[in-house]
Amino acid sequence: MADRNSPIGVFDSGVGGLTVVREIMRQMPEERLVYFGDTARVPYGTKSKDTIVRYTRQNIRFLMTQDVKAIVIACNTATAFALEIVEQELKIPVMGVIHAGAKTAVEATRNGKIGIIGTEGTIRSGVYTKMMEEMRDDIEVIGKSCPLFVPLVEEGLLHDSVTDEIASRYLSELKGKFIDTLVLGCTHYPLLRSTVGRVMGPEVTLVNPAYETALELKQVLSESQLLNDTDEPFQDKYHFYVSDLAEKFTNFASSILPDQIKQTKKINIEDF
Amino acid sequence: MADRNSPIGVFDSGVGGLTVVREIMRQMPEERLVYFGDTARVPYGTKSKDTIVRYTRQNIRFLMTQDVKAIVIACNTATAFALEIVEQELKIPVMGVIHAGAKTAVEATRNGKIGIIGTEGTIRSGVYTKMMEEMRDDIEVIGKSCPLFVPLVEEGLLHDSVTDEIASRYLSELKGKFIDTLVLGCTHYPLLRSTVGRVMGPEVTLVNPAYETALELKQVLSESQLLNDTDEPFQDKYHFYVSDLAEKFTNFASSILPDQIKQTKKINIEDF
Repeated sequence: MADRNSPIGVFDSGVGGLTVVREIMRQMPEERLVYFGDTARVPYGTKSKDTIVRYTRQNIRFLMTQDVKAIVIACNTATAFALEIVEQELKIPVMGVIHAGAKTAVEATRNGKIGIIGTEGTIRSGVYTKMMEEMRDDIEVIGKSCPLFVPLVEEGLLHDSVTDEIASRYLSELKGKFIDTLVLGCTHYPLLRSTVGRVMGPEVTLVNPAYETALELKQVLSESQLLNDTDEPFQDKYHFYVSDLAEKFTNFASSILPDQIKQTKKINIEDF
Repeated sequence: MADRNSPIGVFDSGVGGLTVVREIMRQMPEERLVYFGDTARVPYGTKSKDTIVRYTRQNIRFLMTQDVKAIVIACNTATAFALEIVEQELKIPVMGVIHAGAKTAVEATRNGKIGIIGTEGTIRSGVYTKMMEEMRDDIEVIGKSCPLFVPLVEEGLLHDSVTDEIASRYLSELKGKFIDTLVLGCTHYPLLRSTVGRVMGPEVTLVNPAYETALELKQVLSESQLLNDTDEPFQDKYHFYVSDLAEKFTNFASSILPDQIKQTKKINIEDF
């Protein structure tokens, strides 16, 4: 039985999962958190299922050494390829970033046409489409991979004419299909929210799975009686680990999280 | 003692090294070749020295299982971080892609101002600068990393207004310094040669290390009496291996190599 005062474990292929961490920090400020960013093996979005399942197992084995009470796979590709497999292998709650976003989109759509953007791996897996069609059978889901969005975010071009141009090209197909709801199906993409919103126009509802996932996590922890119940605030609530380039990660993380990150530790993920 | 009729081993983080393979095929059509593209762990350019040294050793151990007579590290980042280390560990010739390009640039410059573009890893290592300054002490070397060039190439945007715009931004600093010679210091970049040439203008000499490396390899093999001397052509001259997504690799490789590639085999590089 996991301890309710243990930290929540979160991992992603790199920095993208920090958008989920940001939402968890906002919605559950009393929770402790251990984050692992697999920066040595980023990106996941262009890799095969076998590889991603292997990486996911290693990442979870590392988080388990930190005595986490629940695990969030804050990466759409890893959720798409590995969640179903690893949830059978774990005794603590594990969740991905797809379910909550899919549910919100299905509830939000008025005309039944939902767009989903993500990496090649996520879109190729068809997991969003499958999940949303199971939730409601009168909807049409149109997927589109946007491979340049992650490098553009990591290059810091969040508000830039080049990003606007690339977004216009990627999204024109979805606009042509008159979707009224669009899922930002990669954890980097909330950082491009204003660009995507401008291209799609105000009539399209953008769904941010990072926000929805934090909400779902709070509910899961509550139902499992795993919400933190200590009165005193923890000294060192947040711990960050990466598989490479800790300093670069610290800088990026500090730019998108509410608090400055003190330190990121580097581990050799192949050891787990 | 290596057999002169054995294949040449070439590796890269992914598809970029195929520009070197293309030059080897053109300049030494009688040679056999084994290529390994580390597509599961691409890109190398944003990773640390420790990680790249470990990956390089694994890639070489795999190529040695194919009885190669010489090894070409067809990746600037791996050359920058690992060549000096692994050449002390090997009994066969091993070369990188930096020396030949650096030498050509130093010989080509008239005003002594040389630009070098590459990944973050290559530029951060300063290896081109160090090597060129050792060859000639009256030159000035200006490095500039271009992190979006690799994803743009892999997205197929070789001739595109977005690539032009990004190239203009990356290269404006080098233009402002009045360089007369520019080294394409990443094996993907020769595929952007026309874009880079247009931005820099006809007065700037572009150095393609892939071409120069194949020339240098021919000379090294000749001096070591390792040039192929069979009369009959081999049936299966070229073998391609990757660590992930073999089919995607085959398609990309077929688009840039002179011949169609029949098949690419997938291996688990972590086993080596």
